[in-house]
Amino acid sequence: MATAGQVIRCKAAVAWEFNQPLVIEEVEVAPPQEKEIRIKIVATGVCQSDLYFLCKCLNQTMFPAVFGHEAAGVVESIGPGVTEFQPGDTVIPLFMPQCRECRLCKSPKTNLCVNGSAGRIDERSFERSRISCRGRKLLQFLGTSSFSEFTVVKEISVAKIDPAAPLHKVCLIGCAICTGYGAAVNTAKVEAGSSCAVFGLGAVGLAAVMGCRAAAASRIIAVDINPEKFEKAKVLGATDVVNPNDHSRPIQQVIQEMTSGGVDFSFECIGNVEVMRSALESCAAGWGVSVIAGWTDMQNFSAPPIQLMTGRKWTGTLFGGFKGKDGVAQMVRAYLDRKLMVDEFITHNLRLDQVNEAVELMKNGRCVRAVLSVAPQ
Amino acid sequence: MATAGQVIRCKAAVAWEFNQPLVIEEVEVAPPQEKEIRIKIVATGVCQSDLYFLCKCLNQTMFPAVFGHEAAGVVESIGPGVTEFQPGDTVIPLFMPQCRECRLCKSPKTNLCVNGSAGRIDERSFERSRISCRGRKLLQFLGTSSFSEFTVVKEISVAKIDPAAPLHKVCLIGCAICTGYGAAVNTAKVEAGSSCAVFGLGAVGLAAVMGCRAAAASRIIAVDINPEKFEKAKVLGATDVVNPNDHSRPIQQVIQEMTSGGVDFSFECIGNVEVMRSALESCAAGWGVSVIAGWTDMQNFSAPPIQLMTGRKWTGTLFGGFKGKDGVAQMVRAYLDRKLMVDEFITHNLRLDQVNEAVELMKNGRCVRAVLSVAPQ
Repeated sequence: MATAGQVIRCKAAVAWEFNQPLVIEEVEVAPPQEKEIRIKIVATGVCQSDLYFLCKCLNQTMFPAVFGHEAAGVVESIGPGVTEFQPGDTVIPLFMPQCRECRLCKSPKTNLCVNGSAGRIDERSFERSRISCRGRKLLQFLGTSSFSEFTVVKEISVAKIDPAAPLHKVCLIGCAICTGYGAAVNTAKVEAGSSCAVFGLGAVGLAAVMGCRAAAASRIIAVDINPEKFEKAKVLGATDVVNPNDHSRPIQQVIQEMTSGGVDFSFECIGNVEVMRSALESCAAGWGVSVIAGWTDMQNFSAPPIQLMTGRKWTGTLFGGFKGKDGVAQMVRAYLDRKLMVDEFITHNLRLDQVNEAVELMKNGRCVRAVLSVAPQ
Repeated sequence: MATAGQVIRCKAAVAWEFNQPLVIEEVEVAPPQEKEIRIKIVATGVCQSDLYFLCKCLNQTMFPAVFGHEAAGVVESIGPGVTEFQPGDTVIPLFMPQCRECRLCKSPKTNLCVNGSAGRIDERSFERSRISCRGRKLLQFLGTSSFSEFTVVKEISVAKIDPAAPLHKVCLIGCAICTGYGAAVNTAKVEAGSSCAVFGLGAVGLAAVMGCRAAAASRIIAVDINPEKFEKAKVLGATDVVNPNDHSRPIQQVIQEMTSGGVDFSFECIGNVEVMRSALESCAAGWGVSVIAGWTDMQNFSAPPIQLMTGRKWTGTLFGGFKGKDGVAQMVRAYLDRKLMVDEFITHNLRLDQVNEAVELMKNGRCVRAVLSVAPQ
């Protein structure tokens, strides 16, 4: 492209300060350096993790930043040493890299990579950013920054996908859908005929419901305090819906009774430590597995030791245990093969300059996913 | 036997009150009722769980009681409907039953049994007791009460063992050895060549070390603040010993550094919620499994969600995951075949009437196991 090697001036939604509206600004996106790729973002979802760091978790070192990490786009140009991509490739940026070479990438047991930042932010995080505005470097949130017409991402943090994929849909495979679906099929390894409970019916929870159905669970109990979520949960596979506010007993007791002893698998898809405990205690003694898929770093979870000593297992997941490059490509293929629902998650289609509307919709639980159109595909 | 069908008057160590010395009393042991067995106790270990309920956990409803749950003996008589045992059989009482018929017993995933009391104590617990003293029913701790010359146990709570077994040794298979060993081989499923850390080198911890070695772990880090425990840990298989008091950094950081990223398996064998968290955080991100084998119900454990979301698994064990009847018989067989160490755990041999000495030795960390001789084999 004519822009290769040049600084690109384009629009991005900049978070200048904690808990303030994002501001559409003209930013400068530097050319990709060694083993980096510059991507034209076509579409991006707005995820609760964006909101968490923008509005909930006060992290003074994070601003100014460009948020957004659930996106799809087209490679604009590649830096020196990039071998896996060409300009024009359709891609999904990854907030968890897959270098394929480290001890973690080589293990089939995990999707972590030693090159993952695990969310650490320091002065070098700003130095490494390729996006700046008015002379200031903007933090690239999770190394992605998809609330921008262009972004630069490491080669190890990009998945190549089928060029036939509609990017305004499959962008959601870049976070929520893999996280929830993989929590069920990869992390919990839900078994055919088993019983499951999913706590929190945002996009991650709904994807977990879909994952439980894909794994042929016979009972899938969807739990939320917002009954407006139940209809979609049923579309995605829930066999039962439960509103904790409809019961005077603790929800774990309700589920224990519904299932004569607890579910085989449970999923926390909110990021609430009290719900994490409820999800654990909803599991069957002897073998129940509870997976934490919702993010928080503001509080610790806790529970009585007997809950684990009686044979429950507590674990968690990032990106649903999918190794990014491999998993995203497979999930996009599954969508194209009509084996995976994605369209059902999209309740709002907006433009990048409407990002604050999308944030408000998410905050108020009024959407599953708003997809922002950033550039034509 | 001549005593069959009769009340037996014999000696027992009675716990009249919380945190008071046990008192050797003449007690009355009723004949076994439907599907019960009366056992002449030959030898019994003194376990930290006895001490926990005697001296640490204030449970007003528990007294008066006869403690002791790690024992071996000989069947004196059987109640109506007992088919699996005959007088003269050598046996180990089980604090966790195995009925072989319930949904839990039929599952290969757990050693729980729906007939287990899970430690619940109520008025009926006293009514069900077959041991009384001066007209008062004495609670049968964990349904066993081995600090008595005779006790009555349900048929489902007794394991038949090889008559060649020396009961003064194999009594320890009734609790500590199965708990620790099984935590490694059954619950964690320690893999050959893996790295392990064992926190707390009492009998359970030492048995966990032995289990890790049996599973061919290549590195076994034994952790205790009492360096007198290290020699025995090495005998049982520890490759490294660590005293947290020798380090200014948190022990989990020390172990993370020793192992370049954490152990594959860790075991908490104390019953301390802070150590439970240290054990979890000593595990490798991606796949580390931490098993809680030490008992407490006085506090909850807690940890940051990221510890699980990065792929660690937290679970626990009761009796090391062994189904009692099957597991105890196998472990006794392994001991007789010289595939399992037991003698090494016994640091003191005392008589039942010296039980308070044994309690003091345990309290002060001055023994691994004291075995009380109750009757000649």
